[in-house]
Amino acid sequence: MSKKMRSKPRKEISYTSRIRVRFVETDPLGIVWHGNYIQYFEDGREAFGRHHGISYLDQKEHNFSTPIVKSNSEHKLPLRYGDVATIKTIYIDSPAAKMMFRYEIYNPKDELVCTGETVQVFVELGGEMSLTIPDFFLAWKKKVGLVDE
Amino acid sequence: MSKKMRSKPRKEISYTSRIRVRFVETDPLGIVWHGNYIQYFEDGREAFGRHHGISYLDQKEHNFSTPIVKSNSEHKLPLRYGDVATIKTIYIDSPAAKMMFRYEIYNPKDELVCTGETVQVFVELGGEMSLTIPDFFLAWKKKVGLVDE
Amino acid sequence: MSKKMRSKPRKEISYTSRIRVRFVETDPLGIVWHGNYIQYFEDGREAFGRHHGISYLDQKEHNFSTPIVKSNSEHKLPLRYGDVATIKTIYIDSPAAKMMFRYEIYNPKDELVCTGETVQVFVELGGEMSLTIPDFFLAWKKKVGLVDE
Amino acid sequence: MSKKMRSKPRKEISYTSRIRVRFVETDPLGIVWHGNYIQYFEDGREAFGRHHGISYLDQKEHNFSTPIVKSNSEHKLPLRYGDVATIKTIYIDSPAAKMMFRYEIYNPKDELVCTGETVQVFVELGGEMSLTIPDFFLAWKKKVGLVDE
Repeated sequence: MSKKMRSKPRKEISYTSRIRVRFVETDPLGIVWHGNYIQYFEDGREAFGRHHGISYLDQKEHNFSTPIVKSNSEHKLPLRYGDVATIKTIYIDSPAAKMMFRYEIYNPKDELVCTGETVQVFVELGGEMSLTIPDFFLAWKKKVGLVDE
Repeated sequence: MSKKMRSKPRKEISYTSRIRVRFVETDPLGIVWHGNYIQYFEDGREAFGRHHGISYLDQKEHNFSTPIVKSNSEHKLPLRYGDVATIKTIYIDSPAAKMMFRYEIYNPKDELVCTGETVQVFVELGGEMSLTIPDFFLAWKKKVGLVDE
Repeated sequence: MSKKMRSKPRKEISYTSRIRVRFVETDPLGIVWHGNYIQYFEDGREAFGRHHGISYLDQKEHNFSTPIVKSNSEHKLPLRYGDVATIKTIYIDSPAAKMMFRYEIYNPKDELVCTGETVQVFVELGGEMSLTIPDFFLAWKKKVGLVDE
Repeated sequence: MSKKMRSKPRKEISYTSRIRVRFVETDPLGIVWHGNYIQYFEDGREAFGRHHGISYLDQKEHNFSTPIVKSNSEHKLPLRYGDVATIKTIYIDSPAAKMMFRYEIYNPKDELVCTGETVQVFVELGGEMSLTIPDFFLAWKKKVGLVDE
């Protein structure tokens, strides 16, 4: 992804949540099917959103949805049925009209099993993609200290 | 289920479709996870609907949705990754304001692996459950020969 | 289901757990897709199993799997994205070589949204369906007080 | 991804298959949930594999599995319920002990809705990741004309 995406925010805004691997999420090899990590990323992003006040329902209240336009994942170790995994969701700040997150998933031994990134854009409900940062998101950036008042 | 549900229609309206078992649909035991048969029933019901003109999109055009209020399944044999299974979807006629289907799923050797039934009611979009059969559904019953003109 | 299945245990063994409805579990009508309740039943059954020592992993340790041979669900009210639902999982005792559970799912207002039942049989790994109750399950019945020593 | 991954094969080996968007694959916004494209990529890859003789089952016959270690997706347009989409799966050749594919998904109007890439490694069943190209895969490369005899 672009250099801009990798730029370090002055202040890291993150949230750590947990998921328990479901039987149905594992495959005939006994490990989590790779596509389910996209769901775990969403679980982490929503836990972040509920904690920091920027969840899907918060966005909807402001008449915005934030579809994902890019995502990637890298897999280092497997997760197995019954594992309680830890998801660290890190907001990546950018001056663009985008929401970007980085994810780190750890197994019960605290080993890194998977990393990933997602990029979301802002779409006004029933409308077009926003080319500028919506007011509610700018207000959120101020609230969490990413932008000066 | 009730005796009414089991009443034989004078004429059997059915449709036979096929699905190929996906890797992600199988579990660590190497067989299809039981919950996925609910999806196969829906695949069969939608194939029936597209063929006989009563699919989800046909219902939506008439401002109705048909939520499932009851379902059951019985599992006799497993399906495995790569199996191409046959789904027979049979409409069960009833004088009530309901849509009822029976499903029979066969493996590549033509052995019966799973049976099930679903019951749907009619809900006007943005409204209440309909206690009488909606006009579009009565028209459909006439079209397929279940009700006399 | 048969009269035997409905027989009241002398003592109710149950467990209550919680799930949060995921975005991906809801459909274009904004409500949980009916097939996902089968997953919620499994979530409840596994939470019961971890609490009472009879989970999938406990069974596997004794070289048994317990495939589902029957299930049914009845839907009374919808669940929506973000709802934290309560699942009560109740063990239904029987003299047969079966595991049977009943499920009651409640919405955040404590209204009953869905009920269901599942029936599982015992299969020795790499083997046949057991016609008698396996030792490990009889031992479990004694431990939880369903069978006299 | 690395320059190596983007290297053009002398000869393009690809396969085009179709999927029909399922109701359950769409979200409350009425469009396919982004995580389901990972499934569509797998559908395309397996259709490619069945056609060209290198599917999951072919690999298993040679005692290899090919877990995904990297994937990415880019989303340009939505897919909706009932859409019949076209998946073009293109094999990306490389001298490394890897399998790489590129995916292009088109809507019924033949507009590009999603692209993606996956990288798989070779793992001997019950063993370690292979650092060299397994014999069965080299034989496949010869068969399809990517490597000289």
